[in-house]
Amino acid sequence: MPPFAERVDTYQQRLRASFERWLPSATTYPARLHEALRYACDGGKHLRPLLVYAAGEVLGLPARRLDAAACAVEMIHVYSLVHDDLPAMDDDDLRRGRPTTHRAFDEATAILVGDALQALAFHVLAADHDSGLDASRRLQMVERLAQAAGSRGMVGGQAVDLAAEGQQLTLAELEALHIHKTGAMIRACLQLACLAAPDLPAEQAEALDHYGKTIGLAFQIQDDVLDIESSSAALGKTAGKDEAHLKSTYPSVMGLPAAKLRAAELFASARDVLGPFNDAAEPLLWLTRHIEGRDH
Amino acid sequence: MPPFAERVDTYQQRLRASFERWLPSATTYPARLHEALRYACDGGKHLRPLLVYAAGEVLGLPARRLDAAACAVEMIHVYSLVHDDLPAMDDDDLRRGRPTTHRAFDEATAILVGDALQALAFHVLAADHDSGLDASRRLQMVERLAQAAGSRGMVGGQAVDLAAEGQQLTLAELEALHIHKTGAMIRACLQLACLAAPDLPAEQAEALDHYGKTIGLAFQIQDDVLDIESSSAALGKTAGKDEAHLKSTYPSVMGLPAAKLRAAELFASARDVLGPFNDAAEPLLWLTRHIEGRDH
Repeated sequence: MPPFAERVDTYQQRLRASFERWLPSATTYPARLHEALRYACDGGKHLRPLLVYAAGEVLGLPARRLDAAACAVEMIHVYSLVHDDLPAMDDDDLRRGRPTTHRAFDEATAILVGDALQALAFHVLAADHDSGLDASRRLQMVERLAQAAGSRGMVGGQAVDLAAEGQQLTLAELEALHIHKTGAMIRACLQLACLAAPDLPAEQAEALDHYGKTIGLAFQIQDDVLDIESSSAALGKTAGKDEAHLKSTYPSVMGLPAAKLRAAELFASARDVLGPFNDAAEPLLWLTRHIEGRDH
Repeated sequence: MPPFAERVDTYQQRLRASFERWLPSATTYPARLHEALRYACDGGKHLRPLLVYAAGEVLGLPARRLDAAACAVEMIHVYSLVHDDLPAMDDDDLRRGRPTTHRAFDEATAILVGDALQALAFHVLAADHDSGLDASRRLQMVERLAQAAGSRGMVGGQAVDLAAEGQQLTLAELEALHIHKTGAMIRACLQLACLAAPDLPAEQAEALDHYGKTIGLAFQIQDDVLDIESSSAALGKTAGKDEAHLKSTYPSVMGLPAAKLRAAELFASARDVLGPFNDAAEPLLWLTRHIEGRDH
């Protein structure tokens, strides 16, 4: 099989096609809300959907089995960005190099865009009949996504993050925060791909789950590092905002060199976990390198 | 069978038991978020769950078939109240006779409480294995709830409501607004009950759907009337706020007497639709009278 890199564009197109399929048109009543929904969903790196598709390849699954899951995780991710950027939360003006949704529209619209996107994510999982998966698997996907997105997952992490502003966290507290805030949804990407694979041996599901946990933490440490080392232009969002918000970060808790070393170790460990998949692991190995090498 | 009135308390208890089962404890990490979640969920009239249970009785279904649906619609309803009360939305200080969630906690926490509750609603539908319903029915419930709660349903209605502030709407515009804002979820209560009834004749599903549409609109007109005629103490929220917010309401568009007449006509029409169910309709007939007679 040609390397995963050659199929990244195809998967991005699949994802855009899914969004096109499920997002109401910008003229659907109420038009301004749907215009804002589409604005919020425009662009992005699509890391989470690519993780779903790459894991699907590792497990030998056809892409259509994963279209709904890939679309749903991205919708949850986008909704979380729209809400996190709100004045009452991180109060950000810039996202993906453009005004945040509440800046381009207004605060109430941004709240409703997030709310609508979350509902739509579950709608997509429940209403996509092209996956070829049976209803009980799709129901398990709904459950998994709801858990990862909820108060014991992503939303819980965001709550802890806000409460921690101005406080110096311990490394354990910081790790708990990020296991929830970014880790839960990244892990869910791998778990959803596993749910799309009937008769998956338990050790393969465990290996991919371990990979998801590890890459999720590595990703977050690297995010903290990039917030210091990268420019706003490269990030497409305000750089240096962690320090400005007095947020505990891996560099602030461990020091910058130790944080970079820890991220590198976790990336290496994520690659190791994929060993038993042999050559079939290439899509996730490529994605791991791609994530490790990003500058935004 | 004894009248539905005698079982209302039992259903309220079932609902509270469901919330107790699915809401994380107030000490679960992150504790402050879960404390706020429980605060937001405390109290309420539980009209929507009662509609689910009453429709279930009309269709001869055991209550356990409907526990997840009743719980999920109430969770969506509570999340929508928490978000609607936010400063960027209706900016309300009082709900159910107590400070709104963003007043009792803070704005960011209230946003996250709503987000978490929406995820939990879908979690409950997907994870409740006690309903005895097959996976494909439960998946249809997820789809139905997502659609009713989303941008073409409740959230869309709220967007139109906010955009309409300070404008005088036509009756048709006002009706479109409320068919989305309150109507979609009330209708979903009846539809979810129908999905819990295998082999339901199409004409019965249609009758209950018609009932749901009618009672939803009647409920909203009455809400507008109560906002004028009732006190804040009886309402448990700020009375007269529609006028203060320059909102179009049925009384402002039609005049108060015409609005009251229209509500009465709709309540009568909702009762008529139940005719073919004969005596089995008693639970919904009781609930219709109960809604019509409320003063808050």
